[in-house]
Amino acid sequence: MVPSEIRALFAMVARPEVVSLAGGAPYVSALPLDAVGRMIGDLVAGKGAEVLQYGSAQGDERLREHICEVMALEGVQASADDVVVTVGAQQALDLITKIFVDPGDVVLAEAPSYVGALGTFASYQADVVHVPLDEGGLIPAALRETLARLRREGRRVKFLYTVPTFQNPAGVTLTTARRAQILEICAEYDVLVVEDNPYGLLGFDGDPMRALRADDSQRVIYLGSFSKTIASGLRVGWVLAPHAVRAKLVLAAESAILCPSNFSQLAVREYLATQPWREQIKGFRELYRARRDAMLDSLDQLMPDGCTWTRPAGGFFVWLTLPEGLDSKAMAPRAIAERVAYVPGTGFYADGTGHRHMRLSYCFPEPHRIREGVRRLAAVIEQEVRLRDTFGGTVAGNSVGVQAPGPDVV
Amino acid sequence: MVPSEIRALFAMVARPEVVSLAGGAPYVSALPLDAVGRMIGDLVAGKGAEVLQYGSAQGDERLREHICEVMALEGVQASADDVVVTVGAQQALDLITKIFVDPGDVVLAEAPSYVGALGTFASYQADVVHVPLDEGGLIPAALRETLARLRREGRRVKFLYTVPTFQNPAGVTLTTARRAQILEICAEYDVLVVEDNPYGLLGFDGDPMRALRADDSQRVIYLGSFSKTIASGLRVGWVLAPHAVRAKLVLAAESAILCPSNFSQLAVREYLATQPWREQIKGFRELYRARRDAMLDSLDQLMPDGCTWTRPAGGFFVWLTLPEGLDSKAMAPRAIAERVAYVPGTGFYADGTGHRHMRLSYCFPEPHRIREGVRRLAAVIEQEVRLRDTFGGTVAGNSVGVQAPGPDVV
Repeated sequence: MVPSEIRALFAMVARPEVVSLAGGAPYVSALPLDAVGRMIGDLVAGKGAEVLQYGSAQGDERLREHICEVMALEGVQASADDVVVTVGAQQALDLITKIFVDPGDVVLAEAPSYVGALGTFASYQADVVHVPLDEGGLIPAALRETLARLRREGRRVKFLYTVPTFQNPAGVTLTTARRAQILEICAEYDVLVVEDNPYGLLGFDGDPMRALRADDSQRVIYLGSFSKTIASGLRVGWVLAPHAVRAKLVLAAESAILCPSNFSQLAVREYLATQPWREQIKGFRELYRARRDAMLDSLDQLMPDGCTWTRPAGGFFVWLTLPEGLDSKAMAPRAIAERVAYVPGTGFYADGTGHRHMRLSYCFPEPHRIREGVRRLAAVIEQEVRLRDTFGGTVAGNSVGVQAPGPDVV
Repeated sequence: MVPSEIRALFAMVARPEVVSLAGGAPYVSALPLDAVGRMIGDLVAGKGAEVLQYGSAQGDERLREHICEVMALEGVQASADDVVVTVGAQQALDLITKIFVDPGDVVLAEAPSYVGALGTFASYQADVVHVPLDEGGLIPAALRETLARLRREGRRVKFLYTVPTFQNPAGVTLTTARRAQILEICAEYDVLVVEDNPYGLLGFDGDPMRALRADDSQRVIYLGSFSKTIASGLRVGWVLAPHAVRAKLVLAAESAILCPSNFSQLAVREYLATQPWREQIKGFRELYRARRDAMLDSLDQLMPDGCTWTRPAGGFFVWLTLPEGLDSKAMAPRAIAERVAYVPGTGFYADGTGHRHMRLSYCFPEPHRIREGVRRLAAVIEQEVRLRDTFGGTVAGNSVGVQAPGPDVV
């Protein structure tokens, strides 16, 4: 497609009659906006000289202490001194890649992996090598095999990038048993682990999973974010890194942005210090659980034979695999014409694969809209199956892929 | 100095009894904090679903329209479509350098130049070549000579980085006649100009200077910021670039941070749309003019023979040159012991020079503190002159340089 066609397509996705199962935007309207507004207004009026001023490149110290409390919910013991506040976890990814990756270095990532990370790795000319996952997350045997092969080939592997919990885009979670195995394998091959964990506190059953970082403070660089648990528009994320890496991160952050926004940071600090944030996150979990249920119920009822999908226990995403011979990228414009949008699977692979997959998100639309979206999508897929049976394969058509992460696919 | 000594020194600078003429932090307490707090509180309560959500990588469209109105005050005609909102102008510098500079490429910069830019250029392994300035700003003949030499040497010059108006750190302003010459020379040698203009609206006499960008929309990339005119803690800056560069900037920004904060952006948008910002900036100009006057008056009265300094017509900084044989870097710990701080000149040169210079800022301390700071500094310099006359040169001692931009030296 030419750019004008892509723009036209994206403009259509934004139309209210289209049910978007594409975006990864959290449902921030569920926040207590009046209370938050009052809190922030008072903060600016009362502490404006600090809130509106430059801060340190590492980020506000008291906020970093609160961040350590948040991470403790996932078993992470950390010192505020080893935390660097970033402009969302995306900036942490960017800084880590800048520090570690020279052109041609290998970065390992799940297949599929977060589109925004793949974009950053590409921007530093990393060579992304995918390692498959299944319903239990990254497959340890596949990781070992890949590392052995790369070693034989004399390749330099800089780190494993993983979203172990409620993965974006696959919606799967690394099992407890596999967590230990992954850490062991990475130790054996002396590979760093970059654990990206924006969804960890948004689990629908029981207590939060124990983070990889909880069991290895030297090998694991942990990325966190308030984008999904509180509000994405604040752009407050963080990285917890071993001390020597942390020092490099602060210098890189200073060079990139001087310092993160005190306005955003102190809003989060005040929120964590004075508002019932644990209850608010619990409310988010219940909200997203109901939407997950709406999506899974509709998929169970409506999807034609040959489709399979994951069953997330938290987070925002379901990963759907189409019947053989169908192509999610080619199908996307036809789905939008039927007023339903998703992200084609191709965006989540660095190697040009993913055509049979798509990411469906349930985080933003209300449950009745999710059901309607799945109904429309099922009809489109049925139509595609008929076309395949008549013409022997997906009929070539307009095709749109993910060109860059973009807030609509985070 | 070892790191622990540097930390100890910086901790001393932060003590209230030290007059810091080092920092470049604006005096944000002069903002109408109650009104701003009310405005922001209402904004979050009323439009939280937008304010707290992801935005586009390019930045909010209506904010970009307001930014065009701000730039129009300096003669710049621009379309909001060519503006990219960044995390302060520092991020714009980072993205531009990432896009244009390969290791070993030449970047031209004034001597002295903004320390944060030099840090960014170094992080991409640019080779910074300085071009001297005087009271009238960058010297055209020196620029031409440098470009001719570099061409003979077969060097690749990527851009000229300049702060033409109320320069950081020198406090000088490029004359109108020279502006045309600089643009001509850069056209002749086909070199891009990166015009960094955070202080342009903070002039003490008459109307704002006409920006370089106002007379060349194709060769000049313009960086702007609300850090000095409104509030640094918001971290809202921007870049105005020719269309092809703008497209690359948006992709690079997306990879680096996904999108700038809606929370900060919409606070600025609302402020520009509803508050008397022109009057507020006028108030800032009067505030800083009084502080500039306090500093120049004190320098005139108190500085020993052999010291010279610039006379800024706007912005935050005076650039002081010490008598021959003195070293501002070696002297810094002794000045701090006498409870006055400045930034040694060495931080503003990529070539290891600058020992006889220092940057004095008048933006943050109140006038009576500025006078006291200059009094203390004059006494330290007099003592140094006596030492020089006795021992024939600056006595070697502890020395602290600028290691990275840092909010205390912006």
